[in-house]
Amino acid sequence: MTSHESGPGALTNDRIARLLLGRIGEPGDVALTKVIAEFGAPGALEQVRTGSMHHAGVANLRARLEVADPEHDLAAGALVGARFVIPGDAEWPEQVDDLVRLGRRDAGVPLGLWVRGPLDLRVACRRSVAVVGARASTAYGEYVAGELGLGLAERLWAVVSGGAYGIDSRAHRAALAARGTTIAVLASGLSYGYPRGHHELFEAIAAGGALVSESPPDRAPSRPGFLIRNRMIAAASRGTVVVEAALRSGALSTARHAAELCRPLMAVPGPVTSELSAGCHEIIRNTGAVLVTDAHDVIEVISPAGEGLAEPRRGPGRPRDGLDAQTTAVLEAIPARGGCGPAQIAVTAGVGLDTAMRCLGELAAAGFIERSASGWRVRRKR
Amino acid sequence: MTSHESGPGALTNDRIARLLLGRIGEPGDVALTKVIAEFGAPGALEQVRTGSMHHAGVANLRARLEVADPEHDLAAGALVGARFVIPGDAEWPEQVDDLVRLGRRDAGVPLGLWVRGPLDLRVACRRSVAVVGARASTAYGEYVAGELGLGLAERLWAVVSGGAYGIDSRAHRAALAARGTTIAVLASGLSYGYPRGHHELFEAIAAGGALVSESPPDRAPSRPGFLIRNRMIAAASRGTVVVEAALRSGALSTARHAAELCRPLMAVPGPVTSELSAGCHEIIRNTGAVLVTDAHDVIEVISPAGEGLAEPRRGPGRPRDGLDAQTTAVLEAIPARGGCGPAQIAVTAGVGLDTAMRCLGELAAAGFIERSASGWRVRRKR
Repeated sequence: MTSHESGPGALTNDRIARLLLGRIGEPGDVALTKVIAEFGAPGALEQVRTGSMHHAGVANLRARLEVADPEHDLAAGALVGARFVIPGDAEWPEQVDDLVRLGRRDAGVPLGLWVRGPLDLRVACRRSVAVVGARASTAYGEYVAGELGLGLAERLWAVVSGGAYGIDSRAHRAALAARGTTIAVLASGLSYGYPRGHHELFEAIAAGGALVSESPPDRAPSRPGFLIRNRMIAAASRGTVVVEAALRSGALSTARHAAELCRPLMAVPGPVTSELSAGCHEIIRNTGAVLVTDAHDVIEVISPAGEGLAEPRRGPGRPRDGLDAQTTAVLEAIPARGGCGPAQIAVTAGVGLDTAMRCLGELAAAGFIERSASGWRVRRKR
Repeated sequence: MTSHESGPGALTNDRIARLLLGRIGEPGDVALTKVIAEFGAPGALEQVRTGSMHHAGVANLRARLEVADPEHDLAAGALVGARFVIPGDAEWPEQVDDLVRLGRRDAGVPLGLWVRGPLDLRVACRRSVAVVGARASTAYGEYVAGELGLGLAERLWAVVSGGAYGIDSRAHRAALAARGTTIAVLASGLSYGYPRGHHELFEAIAAGGALVSESPPDRAPSRPGFLIRNRMIAAASRGTVVVEAALRSGALSTARHAAELCRPLMAVPGPVTSELSAGCHEIIRNTGAVLVTDAHDVIEVISPAGEGLAEPRRGPGRPRDGLDAQTTAVLEAIPARGGCGPAQIAVTAGVGLDTAMRCLGELAAAGFIERSASGWRVRRKR
């Protein structure tokens, strides 16, 4: 399907204002963020137009506004299959709104998210885990990232990461290999696609998951942009796992954001002789990160209280943790092979047909199931 | 010096009763331990003699009593240079009395400790850390155990362990290599010296540190005896570090005892791919063990509150944590090279000569300093 048509609605004033502000400002512009939070996007835009905004760079913003063209940006997005999702849209991942909580280094809630891929971002984020770590990773870290990505995908959790070299890409690729759901939050615009060396990886992610960015499609990444992006990775997921990180590294900024958002923070231990495990050990010891060794551990930490806790330490994972009871029942009624019609699924699940249809839609949007010639089936077993 | 003469005092009824009960019973005999706790050693012994003790094996105990010979045991101990230290003796390590706290698997406070070596056990235990782990250790674990033993010894902490193959022996040997203090708590009697393959290691430990056992000198180790011994390792030290341990291993029993005694419990992380780190990860995650990566981390955890906390993460260790202010001042007044007389040390330390003499005695007994031809000097720099 092409995403733009099925995406957000009409070009309201709010949407246009967000497109324009996203073009003329940078994510992480604290002063701009504050004005938007107080006066809304159209109000903030009006203050830029009149030059009345308390902002050191308001002249710059005005100059950029003169050449900004939201229709052009939307068209550039559509060219790479990207839609612009804003707060209030059905697909807006409401978890991200928690970013208003962040204090000091507050880059606030994104003005909007450019999204490419068939996933419903809101639904997928509700059952997702961020797996992040060093770009200059070790073979050990890459192995662990791969096992985590695989294990999470097999248990139908979406893997969120930053699309970078090293740990990030290992986690993405493992989720893809398991035919699972993965989401890459980029620091560049989506048509820029940084790092360029991951062009094919990004195509693969966009084919079944989602590429996400706060920046207009053609924008190159900036140095502060990576840290700003990291807050989005923490905010979009239910919890964050740091696989390998040196002390004072970028991956630890994602960890700090997760902790500040009160999301579960986890870290994988490693040899004490490895500098790339030192950051993980540091946050386990001093930031309250939970030590995790595999996907089972991760799911135990992020699952709602009371779910997944009774199972034995080395037992098989329960793939449906985190879904509500009805959706779980519907998912369990769907065969791994063959296929099944909604009416039969509704009977098997013990829910009404309307409920079954709603749950099927959510599960499909999140990439957990798919429709075959013979009906619905679990996606990972294709 | 020969230890027996400078050891405990006269053959009181209490001492004889403890020798006899230690000969006829096994450490870890819960029923016997309870009677001793209630009626004292002489009272318990009287109950064995009269057969009035509520104990399933009282007939056995009586039969053994007929052939028990405390004088013979003392002579056998003296033959290997071992003294029998009991509660109330100046050298009795009072930390061990906390064992009355242990609940279920209560083997209680030892009847007495056979001690071989020049250390004052009480003083040394007050500044000691247990470093324990798997017998079938990996090269990684052995390296870490060695670094910990070295780092603790360099900072003048005594290294307590079980004298076993693997992690235990690496920790002992590293402390010896640093000319530090180390204490081996054996599951066998001291002349039996289990494991026999560590005969030379035990000789080296006895030369400058201490070999310790609850059992009469000639007794072979029993299977439950190893677990009983582990409680002593936890009780004799200020805190316990597990370097490598499989799930459900013996090293974790020491860890459990440390936790039950409310002593700091620490564990070294390792690769999640290593079964021998799984026990460490388990207790970090579920038992509240603190993740430690080096001797600096360990000392930070076990030092009294407020000491050693302000130093930077990678700063040099402060060797004198855990000594009282006067003893610290005296230790700091002692030169690393050459030597110094007590009067000069007293002046430098700003304490009276009596205090200086007392502190010098304690520091020497604990193996921290030594007397050379030219006076007192720090032992590790020999």
